[in-house]
Amino acid sequence: MIKTRIGKLRRRLKQEGLPAILITVPANRFYLSAFTPEDGQAGESSGALLISQDAAFLLTDFRYKLTALAEAVYYEIRLCPAGQAQELAELSRDLGLKKLALEEGGLLFSQWRQLEKNLPGLELVPAGGLVEDLRQIKEGAEIEAIRRSLELMEQALMQTMSQTAAGRSERALALELERAVQDLGGDGLSFPAIVAGGPRGAEPHAQAGGDIISPDSPLVVDVGAAHKKYMSDITRTYLEQGREGFKWKEVYATVRQALETALAGIKPGMSGAQADALARRVIEKKGYGPNFGHSLGHGVGLMVHEAPSLSPRSRQQLLPGMVFTLEPGIYIPGWGGVRLEQMVALEETGCRLLNRLDHFYNE
Amino acid sequence: MIKTRIGKLRRRLKQEGLPAILITVPANRFYLSAFTPEDGQAGESSGALLISQDAAFLLTDFRYKLTALAEAVYYEIRLCPAGQAQELAELSRDLGLKKLALEEGGLLFSQWRQLEKNLPGLELVPAGGLVEDLRQIKEGAEIEAIRRSLELMEQALMQTMSQTAAGRSERALALELERAVQDLGGDGLSFPAIVAGGPRGAEPHAQAGGDIISPDSPLVVDVGAAHKKYMSDITRTYLEQGREGFKWKEVYATVRQALETALAGIKPGMSGAQADALARRVIEKKGYGPNFGHSLGHGVGLMVHEAPSLSPRSRQQLLPGMVFTLEPGIYIPGWGGVRLEQMVALEETGCRLLNRLDHFYNE
Repeated sequence: MIKTRIGKLRRRLKQEGLPAILITVPANRFYLSAFTPEDGQAGESSGALLISQDAAFLLTDFRYKLTALAEAVYYEIRLCPAGQAQELAELSRDLGLKKLALEEGGLLFSQWRQLEKNLPGLELVPAGGLVEDLRQIKEGAEIEAIRRSLELMEQALMQTMSQTAAGRSERALALELERAVQDLGGDGLSFPAIVAGGPRGAEPHAQAGGDIISPDSPLVVDVGAAHKKYMSDITRTYLEQGREGFKWKEVYATVRQALETALAGIKPGMSGAQADALARRVIEKKGYGPNFGHSLGHGVGLMVHEAPSLSPRSRQQLLPGMVFTLEPGIYIPGWGGVRLEQMVALEETGCRLLNRLDHFYNE
Repeated sequence: MIKTRIGKLRRRLKQEGLPAILITVPANRFYLSAFTPEDGQAGESSGALLISQDAAFLLTDFRYKLTALAEAVYYEIRLCPAGQAQELAELSRDLGLKKLALEEGGLLFSQWRQLEKNLPGLELVPAGGLVEDLRQIKEGAEIEAIRRSLELMEQALMQTMSQTAAGRSERALALELERAVQDLGGDGLSFPAIVAGGPRGAEPHAQAGGDIISPDSPLVVDVGAAHKKYMSDITRTYLEQGREGFKWKEVYATVRQALETALAGIKPGMSGAQADALARRVIEKKGYGPNFGHSLGHGVGLMVHEAPSLSPRSRQQLLPGMVFTLEPGIYIPGWGGVRLEQMVALEETGCRLLNRLDHFYNE
């Protein structure tokens, strides 16, 4: 699998006339090497891959020596006692490189400048997106890993929400969701849980705070699991039974209809914008267009937000093997929000739903 | 407090001849604004601060509107419907800016290029480190916040390690430590716990894995808590009683002596290299110099690794108000490692130990 991926990247490099590339985006590094360590805080690196047509090096350091030897079996390991930039200078000389592709989304501006300083004879070419392009089309095992991550999150969500959330704090509920995922065998959450009740539900990315959840307002819960490096993402909106007013019913039904319309209508070959429009038109028809202020969905895999984008401006073509979310929402200042999010894998015939427990409010 | 910090930054900008700065390093953004949202994955931003002598803007988006209004009270909030770069172009025109300082360690190369494209008439100046310099010298309340974070971690460590670790997996122990911190009121761990037994203890940054902890080998546990944005960092090395051989005793005693020597000897005015040398000499004298492959310590605050650096190459002067770790270690391939780490606040007279439970092996 790793070998095949490296082979695909090498073909892309050839097409682009690039003799070699330095891989620094963490998800790309894992995808191409199986080397698991994370990077620590911004500016810190556990390793970088140097890949040419004939050579493949993992530039890491003594802290990760044993892990590198055990995991990155298709790479020659270099421990870079004088730093990655210095090692890269030597390797470039040895390989006779005149040009090196870099990932401009995987290096800080300060790191790029450091490389320019250390690699004076080398032309540095921004070539980000090559590996992200490969990663968009998931292998069968990857789709299964994502589905499993989603299953863990759904089970955790069902367990945690089987009792009323009212009276608990948003933060306590978020922590409970995380622990449920871990107890089920997952690594944890793929991003800080969004648990937002009442008016705060109108803020799509509200962090779980100390607020006590009220039984009178919609509660938006947007969470994902991380499991063996693969992510999931799901949103449900809850309301205590018996508290549903006219607005809740109308808003919920509209969001649900937007979701189902996208699910049934998205086909390979459509652009991200066309997919987005399927759901957006449903919401616009009911007069809530201005209340759906974000895009319909995004790819999910080794990162929780990755290509493709399903937004009004996205020209990306949706292709079989892509995995993405569908997450329409309506947000009304002062009242709250409703968002529903499912995950799908695109197949030749359309969307395959990855959610196993297709539960919604009051089902 | 926030006002004072902004004032200090403005004085630095004046000294450097910089009319305005864009703050994009997340810790700096929180430090200068109290705006709590995190950035999500690489390339995503919850907000940026634009600070000139007369103006202060928080550039964020509708997802964070309520949070911004509640928290960033010294800033005019801009929701940037067309993106931060576009909003920045308009604000620069309105403010008549010719020059803008950027943090080169807080922007990806791709983000920097995006700003260059959107701000054609503006000279962009790398000016990273200005806020990091301010952050090095902690206010009293910051030291107290760090001490509290450390106290939470120590209590969690004492609870978790009060029973033998042998027979549990490294990952299970790491999870237990995280939950203990949360149950005590902390937010979680400040970095993925390092729990490394036996030969893996020789790899200073070994991730907690599925290995079952053996009673026969040293177990390195390096963990920190995150509490109200402030971090802590502590390392202890454990061995089952009765399993101590000559090597363990010699190595442990040497690391402990190196730690105590640094603790007693570090004074304001020393360089980071001079501080490092105090501990390194003790280890070198016993013949373990080559087995201490990392630096003595690092600053801790809003980030778990920040200035100052206490390394053989560090020319930074250590000053009162700085908070840093002291963490000598000896790593022997095939045998394992011993590392001991304390946290201190530097005062006029020397190091004040922040650890409350000064427990070591067998004490």
